Amino acid sequence: MSGKIRSNLGRSTADKVYVRGRDLSADLIGKVSLGDFAFFELKGRLPDARQSLMFNALAVTLVEHGLTPSAIAARLTSYGAPEALQAAVAAGLLGMGDRFGGSIEDAARLLQEADPDQDPRVVAREIVAAHRERKQPLPGLGHPVHRPEDPRTTRLFELADETGFNGRFVELMKLLAAEASKAAGRQLPVNATGAIAAIASEMGFPWRITRGLAVMARAIGLVAHLQEEIEHPMAPEIWARTEEEAARENPS
Amino acid sequence: MSGKIRSNLGRSTADKVYVRGRDLSADLIGKVSLGDFAFFELKGRLPDARQSLMFNALAVTLVEHGLTPSAIAARLTSYGAPEALQAAVAAGLLGMGDRFGGSIEDAARLLQEADPDQDPRVVAREIVAAHRERKQPLPGLGHPVHRPEDPRTTRLFELADETGFNGRFVELMKLLAAEASKAAGRQLPVNATGAIAAIASEMGFPWRITRGLAVMARAIGLVAHLQEEIEHPMAPEIWARTEEEAARENPS
Amino acid sequence: MSGKIRSNLGRSTADKVYVRGRDLSADLIGKVSLGDFAFFELKGRLPDARQSLMFNALAVTLVEHGLTPSAIAARLTSYGAPEALQAAVAAGLLGMGDRFGGSIEDAARLLQEADPDQDPRVVAREIVAAHRERKQPLPGLGHPVHRPEDPRTTRLFELADETGFNGRFVELMKLLAAEASKAAGRQLPVNATGAIAAIASEMGFPWRITRGLAVMARAIGLVAHLQEEIEHPMAPEIWARTEEEAARENPS
Amino acid sequence: MSGKIRSNLGRSTADKVYVRGRDLSADLIGKVSLGDFAFFELKGRLPDARQSLMFNALAVTLVEHGLTPSAIAARLTSYGAPEALQAAVAAGLLGMGDRFGGSIEDAARLLQEADPDQDPRVVAREIVAAHRERKQPLPGLGHPVHRPEDPRTTRLFELADETGFNGRFVELMKLLAAEASKAAGRQLPVNATGAIAAIASEMGFPWRITRGLAVMARAIGLVAHLQEEIEHPMAPEIWARTEEEAARENPS
Repeated sequence: MSGKIRSNLGRSTADKVYVRGRDLSADLIGKVSLGDFAFFELKGRLPDARQSLMFNALAVTLVEHGLTPSAIAARLTSYGAPEALQAAVAAGLLGMGDRFGGSIEDAARLLQEADPDQDPRVVAREIVAAHRERKQPLPGLGHPVHRPEDPRTTRLFELADETGFNGRFVELMKLLAAEASKAAGRQLPVNATGAIAAIASEMGFPWRITRGLAVMARAIGLVAHLQEEIEHPMAPEIWARTEEEAARENPS
Repeated sequence: MSGKIRSNLGRSTADKVYVRGRDLSADLIGKVSLGDFAFFELKGRLPDARQSLMFNALAVTLVEHGLTPSAIAARLTSYGAPEALQAAVAAGLLGMGDRFGGSIEDAARLLQEADPDQDPRVVAREIVAAHRERKQPLPGLGHPVHRPEDPRTTRLFELADETGFNGRFVELMKLLAAEASKAAGRQLPVNATGAIAAIASEMGFPWRITRGLAVMARAIGLVAHLQEEIEHPMAPEIWARTEEEAARENPS
Repeated sequence: MSGKIRSNLGRSTADKVYVRGRDLSADLIGKVSLGDFAFFELKGRLPDARQSLMFNALAVTLVEHGLTPSAIAARLTSYGAPEALQAAVAAGLLGMGDRFGGSIEDAARLLQEADPDQDPRVVAREIVAAHRERKQPLPGLGHPVHRPEDPRTTRLFELADETGFNGRFVELMKLLAAEASKAAGRQLPVNATGAIAAIASEMGFPWRITRGLAVMARAIGLVAHLQEEIEHPMAPEIWARTEEEAARENPS
Repeated sequence: MSGKIRSNLGRSTADKVYVRGRDLSADLIGKVSLGDFAFFELKGRLPDARQSLMFNALAVTLVEHGLTPSAIAARLTSYGAPEALQAAVAAGLLGMGDRFGGSIEDAARLLQEADPDQDPRVVAREIVAAHRERKQPLPGLGHPVHRPEDPRTTRLFELADETGFNGRFVELMKLLAAEASKAAGRQLPVNATGAIAAIASEMGFPWRITRGLAVMARAIGLVAHLQEEIEHPMAPEIWARTEEEAARENPS
């Protein structure tokens, strides 16, 4: 067999576990926080102080957002399959697709594929025009609940200024918001997914993996939802509110 | 409708996102690391320094363990469904069941259901005897690769001593290893899942949720595996090694 | 490499696809119905007329049961991840665990592990007594909605009589219902999962795989739910009914 | 609450279960085969003889295709989570994405979005030219293993001729193969997914749901793989072939 299977992430010997080439027990456990370790897993090097602050902030932002469809699906799955908590978390993560996690990915892609050598004002204008022509909304802008501004965006951009992750991707994201608002005749501020996309791009995360930042963070939130569900089940009531109504609408 | 649906985890208003009653943007983003935030999500209060050190150490231990069946399943899923990274992570997590994450749960349950008022030596002897009678292996003991000791256990128990999370659950876990080794006539040391089960019990995590600690940590590792898979795919080679052989064994 | 990987299910050559050793295109496509093919996949031989009638009846019973938690989870997942219909089906199936599919498995296990050489009346009495002592409900009996009888059970047992799959497992299931009802002082009739467990046992399905009959059948139902969801989305309304209430209960 | 939640698929009363408005026990169980019932679930009416023959043939074609990445992922998941067969099936289905099930969807979309009023030869030429310009392969054409012809395609198109489901979509699919082969200078025959896409389009399935046909059929195959895995486990050997090599390549 000539094919090669080689992962640079982890491997074990009789007396050691290595992660990214470092001895897990001697060098990492008890010395590195979970967020810094996640950065290390993804990047292959430990974060410096600025990277640590910014990366942990991005991840923290994505952990918990209330009774989202994803959290509800996890709870309903736990009701049917109490033996397998991992399956309920998985069911919840399956909803972190194009509509949620995907908007980070789409925004990051837009930013990363933009020509770095062109005037960002021109780039922003062209992107907005192209989306309007295709009647496609711009990812990372606007929010149905948080108006006029998404409070997470304000905070994340402050931290980006503090840590220096406020380069051309953040600038372009803000220009997109300004151009899109002007074109639409209403405020379309950068939302949390847009801010995360821009800052993750500043930190060198390829757009294809940005959805994964939401997935790994939300896994934590889903475990907390399932802990709450075990203690105070709400799945039966969610079910009753859905099917009860259906029964009334479909009298036999 | 009289039923109540009430989550204490998160909720949003027009200008705020609250997590566990605290303002996410003002109080948490940029101030709390991901690991401490996970503790906060699960416990409802921020960790003190000892709790932070110990909890982050537990979580870090669980992120990455090489090309496990779970990581392989995630990579194969990504090969078939490149459009949905969240689904590949979910497929990987689905394998964190009774054999892997479940051994933490089983060990934690054993410890938490033991009578706290009895002499731990007697408890350990009785548990070992009962398992031997049912020919059931004790969860949290022994390891096929790491011999004689699991290096992660040594490190975690050191940290438990430093942080004071070395009370009766850790004591009982060690007594179980001693009793089981004596009864079996060979070394059955506490493995990483046993150490995590004991320390998580010391920290007050109910056994039903301990499997979730592995699930949330491994989600990070799986995102890293998928990042590597996108850059250097190994799924086709894994497939070829499996089905190629099958073809040779089943000549038409 | 000395290990053997050998599946007896399917393999392909340049001009043929084989399933269970038969030429898929020449012998099966257009000649065998989906239900009979499922029997063939699982059993390695095509069903005779009696087996076909009974197996298709079992499977048909399990396809659709309205807006169950599983169907709701599938719809919510599709809302978040419209790009991946397979993930929404998977999310729905993840809820077919111990509470739903598992009750078929538990009932089938009870029947298949009972001593075939003992008087079934005695066996039934002992099983009921043992469950009452442990305060454990018997799987396959009783139903919160269908009273006094589950209409599916009546029909399935009629067909079992017609096809001859009414041997000792069906007898024992009925005796369990009679004994349990007597002991409880109220009607505890065999429900659909109990009838399916008994008949699947008659047909020689090992209990470990009976949950899979529910899973494969429900996959069809979930695809239909997602088709309806694409045409007439109900996920946003399910979400609103859940989180709207939460907001009212947690005023900021 | 003014929102409406109304499914036309199933509902239950105390003594009846209805599917698509018909009494499940009285009208369907024991009278309708699984494949015909699946058609009924999806279409809202029972198939006639031609529809039954063709629909069952499409579904049968999709059940089993050997040790695919999807089947391997299901087996590895079952190894880690033996308590939850439904989760192993789900893990397998998660790989039925863009690369596998998605090629049916893409081909069906291409066919269904083509202008029905234009000469199909012109349409085929334009589609092939557009794909070549974008260097995009045409979905539903060519196969790495089955050469020169996919045996399933030949059989399915025969049945389409017999049952009359050989209208403009099948014609266009064949024209696309001819045009693409001419343009590429090598044989690019219609593969099984292309044939299924064309015939499903003839039968009136909207392209958005065609991936679901593969998903529901493959669920059956995955249950069979897991049955085989329970009896003769191959997951440990698949794991060893993957990680063993990794260890050799990464000496410590």
